[in-house]
Amino acid sequence: MTNISIVTIGDELLIGQVIDTNSAWMAQELNKAGFWVRRRVAIGDGREDILKALEEESAVAEVILITGGLGPTADDITKAVLCEYFNSTLVVNEAALENVKNIFTKIFKRPIIERNLKQAEVPAACEVIQNKRGTAPGMLFDKNEKIFVSMPGVPYEMKGMMTDDVIPFLKSRFVTHYISHRTLLTAGIGESGLADHISKFESDLPPHIKLAYLPGYGMVRLRLTANAAQADGLERELDHAFKILKSLVNEWMVTDEDITLQEALGKLLIARKQSVSTAESCTGGYIAHLITSIPGSSVYYHGSVIAYDNEIKRKMLNVDPAVLSAHGAVSEETVKAMVHGAIRNMETDFALATSGIMGPGGGSEEKPVGTVWIAAGSAHEIFTRKLWFRFDRQRNIEMTAINVLNLLRTFILSRPL
Amino acid sequence: MTNISIVTIGDELLIGQVIDTNSAWMAQELNKAGFWVRRRVAIGDGREDILKALEEESAVAEVILITGGLGPTADDITKAVLCEYFNSTLVVNEAALENVKNIFTKIFKRPIIERNLKQAEVPAACEVIQNKRGTAPGMLFDKNEKIFVSMPGVPYEMKGMMTDDVIPFLKSRFVTHYISHRTLLTAGIGESGLADHISKFESDLPPHIKLAYLPGYGMVRLRLTANAAQADGLERELDHAFKILKSLVNEWMVTDEDITLQEALGKLLIARKQSVSTAESCTGGYIAHLITSIPGSSVYYHGSVIAYDNEIKRKMLNVDPAVLSAHGAVSEETVKAMVHGAIRNMETDFALATSGIMGPGGGSEEKPVGTVWIAAGSAHEIFTRKLWFRFDRQRNIEMTAINVLNLLRTFILSRPL
Repeated sequence: MTNISIVTIGDELLIGQVIDTNSAWMAQELNKAGFWVRRRVAIGDGREDILKALEEESAVAEVILITGGLGPTADDITKAVLCEYFNSTLVVNEAALENVKNIFTKIFKRPIIERNLKQAEVPAACEVIQNKRGTAPGMLFDKNEKIFVSMPGVPYEMKGMMTDDVIPFLKSRFVTHYISHRTLLTAGIGESGLADHISKFESDLPPHIKLAYLPGYGMVRLRLTANAAQADGLERELDHAFKILKSLVNEWMVTDEDITLQEALGKLLIARKQSVSTAESCTGGYIAHLITSIPGSSVYYHGSVIAYDNEIKRKMLNVDPAVLSAHGAVSEETVKAMVHGAIRNMETDFALATSGIMGPGGGSEEKPVGTVWIAAGSAHEIFTRKLWFRFDRQRNIEMTAINVLNLLRTFILSRPL
Repeated sequence: MTNISIVTIGDELLIGQVIDTNSAWMAQELNKAGFWVRRRVAIGDGREDILKALEEESAVAEVILITGGLGPTADDITKAVLCEYFNSTLVVNEAALENVKNIFTKIFKRPIIERNLKQAEVPAACEVIQNKRGTAPGMLFDKNEKIFVSMPGVPYEMKGMMTDDVIPFLKSRFVTHYISHRTLLTAGIGESGLADHISKFESDLPPHIKLAYLPGYGMVRLRLTANAAQADGLERELDHAFKILKSLVNEWMVTDEDITLQEALGKLLIARKQSVSTAESCTGGYIAHLITSIPGSSVYYHGSVIAYDNEIKRKMLNVDPAVLSAHGAVSEETVKAMVHGAIRNMETDFALATSGIMGPGGGSEEKPVGTVWIAAGSAHEIFTRKLWFRFDRQRNIEMTAINVLNLLRTFILSRPL
């Protein structure tokens, strides 16, 4: 199998100012195309560290994909170091120059400056990959049977080059392995509980099919990966193993596709031609964001009332002030009333609601930080649950969102159409 | 300066199923404590790759921090490889065993299984770091003057160990450099425009103070970092340079603290004792989520109406159906009406609103995908802007959120108290 190393350049990664999302995306796409990412290395904007990484990674991989360090500012030195490594000199690439000029006159509509014109300079030894989404060109080097590609660190620009140029080139140049995945998502059972439950299945798998546990917020994804030189019979074998796995974990299975819980919920609503709205207090719009991140969600999602203030719970969700004063905002009675109000005011078949204390402040002895009430249901019946999390604010919000989305999914599945 | 390498273990990182947020957090904390993260390496769950990484990283760094690969399932082999590398054998650690038992009986409230008891086994050669937040213990090895620490990959557990044990230990063991940062956030100017504007300032900086450009969604953060063996006079020197930088970029400066735009907005509202609500269509709750992610935001944030459906714009934000039919949902008139409705119904001093076509579908010739109208203002006056983005759905949502939050900030600053 062709091994790939991903090298990410930039001091911002080493001081933690930026989270590297590029590498994960690249790895996913390369994996789908039949390549194996062997290592990922992040280094700073220093000449020696870059040279050392190019040397080391080309010793373990056939392809070295480099991102970052191509910006127009003084702290980016990647291009000069590439020139040194490939024993080359900088020359102006006419097509890249044309591209930079175009972007400034047509899109940015501001005068071009010297610093940006320099972005059209590339080492003479490289083959230029034109950047259709920005000013910095990509560079491809072919040295001692190894392929080096340098791309900008801006995710949107890198993704364009990978999809349009780099992956097609690599596929034409290298023999790719046949890789295939099946994934399913479970909720309501921990990683070790699952592992125990399916241990015999796992040990019975043939050597070319592997099982991986990918735990996330309150959920565990299981992935079967088949890997072989040829496709012969592999898909059928994988389907067979996947069928057994599904029957083993059926009780906890959210979806048998490689999609998120909110996507699974969306598919369910589309299939049933039903709609949902949300009434969020403690999750503050995060659930609405998860749902509306999915293209086409407007078909089944009407909207949300984010009732951070109790007055809004009263006015826009018709929560009775007597309920609020008798039971408090974080109570079963309040989240039930919020579901009723959302269904009535936003005219949907179903609704969900959240109310809780996310921290770090706001807790009491009776209702400590992390106490959450969730509800999901229809105009006729509502499921509720009390949760208690001991995490930080962000994770408490995420865990609440996952739990209530799954509660709604369970509720919908329990209803006849 | 003491060099640190971060090694992340797990096939899930190499196939891109998981985004590595641990390394960024670790780098931030280590940097604050005066350490320099030299390299970050991600490798798979393979014996040889792990051994090679331990060997290579200990050649360039004094401290090697390892995360991941300590889960209870069969695909995690880190512990066995650590035993081999440090020439040790697995023994049961009594305190770790007690911890695992406690978690199962008191928190999970389910029977403990063999697989979990195994988590209390550690190489005899290590010093155990007890896990206060989970079952897998941390392990610290001291070999040939190098420190190796292995921690679980679960962010919440790793963070607890780093804060309570690892960083205090490293500070007591190594002489730390003095590192200090000043950061400010700009909006409305690109990276190269800024670089040109402050090029003389940058070239005049003394060698121990460095300037970095950290571009984000529609904003650029500038960071000055001073780095020296001693603190003598460094803070004063840094303050002086920062003062000059602030005056140079004043026109575009959002905040001179290391905080986000939404935090800066929150501080402004708290200082002025004023309140805000939001009315989101195309951003679908993302702005509400950004605002409510900040602890204490309930002081100035009342809530939001996520009006994905036009009927909700009408019913809950009092948008006149005649406005919607004459101008469409994505129009200046509609976002203005949404601001008015939000202020009136949620009783706040200010409100913001968004309406647009985030893609990939839903565009027309007149209003192509990426067309967005934003508005922010008070009951008396409203600022509006039309935007056009060419990114993917997620980035269009993020860019819209940043732009309208900054529009609101600008609006508030233009109002006398």
